[in-house]
Amino acid sequence: MQAALARPNLISLAAGFTDTETLPVAETRALLNELLRPLRAARAALQYGSTTGDPTLRRLTAERFAKLDGVRRGARSPWSPERILITHGSQQLLYMITEALCDPGDIALVEDPTYFVFLGILQSRGVRGCGVRVEADGLDLAHLRAVLERLRRRGQLRRVKLLYLVSYFQNPTGVTTSFAKKRAALALLREYEPAAGHPIYLVEDAAYRELRFAGADEPSALAARGFTERVVYAGTYSKPFATGVRVGFGVLPEPLFSAVVRIKGNHDFGTSNLLQQLLARALASERYDRHLAHLRRRYAHKAHVMQQALERHFPPTVEWRVPQGGLYFWARLPGDLKSGIGSPLFRAALAREVLYVPGALCYAEDATRAKPDNELRLSFGHASERDLREGIRRLGAVLHAQLEQSPSAKAAVRAQAPPPKRRARGSGG
Amino acid sequence: MQAALARPNLISLAAGFTDTETLPVAETRALLNELLRPLRAARAALQYGSTTGDPTLRRLTAERFAKLDGVRRGARSPWSPERILITHGSQQLLYMITEALCDPGDIALVEDPTYFVFLGILQSRGVRGCGVRVEADGLDLAHLRAVLERLRRRGQLRRVKLLYLVSYFQNPTGVTTSFAKKRAALALLREYEPAAGHPIYLVEDAAYRELRFAGADEPSALAARGFTERVVYAGTYSKPFATGVRVGFGVLPEPLFSAVVRIKGNHDFGTSNLLQQLLARALASERYDRHLAHLRRRYAHKAHVMQQALERHFPPTVEWRVPQGGLYFWARLPGDLKSGIGSPLFRAALAREVLYVPGALCYAEDATRAKPDNELRLSFGHASERDLREGIRRLGAVLHAQLEQSPSAKAAVRAQAPPPKRRARGSGG
Repeated sequence: MQAALARPNLISLAAGFTDTETLPVAETRALLNELLRPLRAARAALQYGSTTGDPTLRRLTAERFAKLDGVRRGARSPWSPERILITHGSQQLLYMITEALCDPGDIALVEDPTYFVFLGILQSRGVRGCGVRVEADGLDLAHLRAVLERLRRRGQLRRVKLLYLVSYFQNPTGVTTSFAKKRAALALLREYEPAAGHPIYLVEDAAYRELRFAGADEPSALAARGFTERVVYAGTYSKPFATGVRVGFGVLPEPLFSAVVRIKGNHDFGTSNLLQQLLARALASERYDRHLAHLRRRYAHKAHVMQQALERHFPPTVEWRVPQGGLYFWARLPGDLKSGIGSPLFRAALAREVLYVPGALCYAEDATRAKPDNELRLSFGHASERDLREGIRRLGAVLHAQLEQSPSAKAAVRAQAPPPKRRARGSGG
Repeated sequence: MQAALARPNLISLAAGFTDTETLPVAETRALLNELLRPLRAARAALQYGSTTGDPTLRRLTAERFAKLDGVRRGARSPWSPERILITHGSQQLLYMITEALCDPGDIALVEDPTYFVFLGILQSRGVRGCGVRVEADGLDLAHLRAVLERLRRRGQLRRVKLLYLVSYFQNPTGVTTSFAKKRAALALLREYEPAAGHPIYLVEDAAYRELRFAGADEPSALAARGFTERVVYAGTYSKPFATGVRVGFGVLPEPLFSAVVRIKGNHDFGTSNLLQQLLARALASERYDRHLAHLRRRYAHKAHVMQQALERHFPPTVEWRVPQGGLYFWARLPGDLKSGIGSPLFRAALAREVLYVPGALCYAEDATRAKPDNELRLSFGHASERDLREGIRRLGAVLHAQLEQSPSAKAAVRAQAPPPKRRARGSGG
């Protein structure tokens, strides 16, 4: 894939990069000029800060998300500034929380499919991912219970340390898990804690939360009363503002907070102060929110462009859904058509200069099920409208050709019985 | 210490922070304006980059240090851009290299004393630090051999993965290890590799290299012909430019390079592009070098201020040396006078509102020797000239009072026989 990305005519629908045209160039320049003009403030921005992060950015983060979650403010709030740690992107928090919670041989429950870089983190630390199915409204709670039961019967519950949930416009499926489901998942995890012998945390990855372009925000798991001591929230300002400005944050309960601050001290002793103060100023000046409103309109438009192209060019037996936010469409192929890196489809797509993320990359190694190999992640974040149209056109042509050669897929077409979820529409898009 | 740092009248000679007055405010503002004006370049700076780092910054880094090391350029150079990884400060590289090389139970050879945050990294990963003595011209090679021999006899050599060396104006002692000693250390490590059964790397932490204000630069270990495949070089642009701009870099041989790039991908998939391009532009425009020349004069002056205060206020039986660069003086107390956090000296110093780093914090847990507890790290980096003078005056008064109460120290004074190294002068200062 690395080699393919260097090809000049390649259209990548694979990259998780954000839209280039809307990057806040003028805003960033103005903010940095404001920040670096008063000598005292400028010097503070160019000096080391603390390991936990800039106090103003922590406070503004607490205020922003307490409001979004509809929870009380103050020292006992789940969104108290004292619980917030600023990081070099939310990815760093995911890494550190895994480092803090998991030993080699431990188990992390993950959505099936999930964010593939998190699977890489688990693998690098010798932690096993164990898949929990995803439904149209998020995590499949019945399956979560079945998985916990299975682990309990096998005496493996004591190795389970966390459930990792990409809760908003999930990477890769675009699905959002409802607040009710998050609360129910927390209750379920608590039910199994006595048998596990330790806390089982819900690690909520909210990286795409602010990239909603349809529907209303769901509260985070931190808003679930009585459960906040079991929630780790990973947020980011990189994707909603500028990905070149790597600033994310975590909300963590004690004693995890202190443990992760120690790890952060070892990793890099603190996030670049210049980047933190840039973001703090963006938030305080409301330039962040104005930019975000602009960005949401832009992604709504690009998602619509991709939707129209999919409707026009994809065979009707390919299932996909319109997301309400985030950067991704998720498509499922009919019959026995495969999408993996070794598949004829992937190779034919590359030959036509179009790249997607094969769905199989997003599944944990889990012996309890065969790894699905018939899905595609299609990103509308980075490519231009023109490339989105052309990329989907090329991919559609490849799919039509491959379907022609697939007996079972042809049978599915002949039976005129597309799967029930075909083109289920979200309320937006 | 955290609590003490919040006291308004406290003079901290402990912080590793850099000088605030010389932070490049105008330069950074100018560079960012240049960077963010052309739309195409601005967008590139605000977008994700690659995990290895900005190509221009990697190239400029290669050119800069190949020249400094006097080595050839090109693909086979130890300073080839392909061997360079850009990180969020050099600390991140130290963490990742430990992660790549060491398993729990492994051994890292470290200077005795060494950079205390590196000891924290080792401890957090279950790696044992094993101390090698430091002389006035750096690493004690005879002791390095003795330590390797001891480990060989005990069958522990297979656990030894690296020697960590802060090679320029060492944190904490201010000592520089000569190029000849670095080459000899590499040869010694190679001699023990067959018994170890794997490579033993020299991890050269050159964080203070560019902060030289007297004498001439020593080449890095990468300049040792025939040994570059065993050298990891950790450099930084944060301290010489602005600590709020967290950009460091590593030079690594394969297969370590690929292993650490994978780890970096898991940690944060790449260093903030905005910070990298800011540094690349600072280097290319020569603003970096102009700023560095200014900074060196400033630290030379502050080191001189501290030296004069030490001469004036410290008891003559306290040993210390004038460094040729970096941020630190290292002082050794006479007799049985202790400097540790629990010591009367430390408490008396805090009561007088002055803070230092107790030397004991800089020593690995090593059962083969008692941990020295009679040294102080004194930083001239952050405090103003006035605070340097006043801080050393206060500390001197405390030392005189403590010495009055110490029978053995009084005996040393009476004997009129101060230790031979007393006030040994470096060639600079």
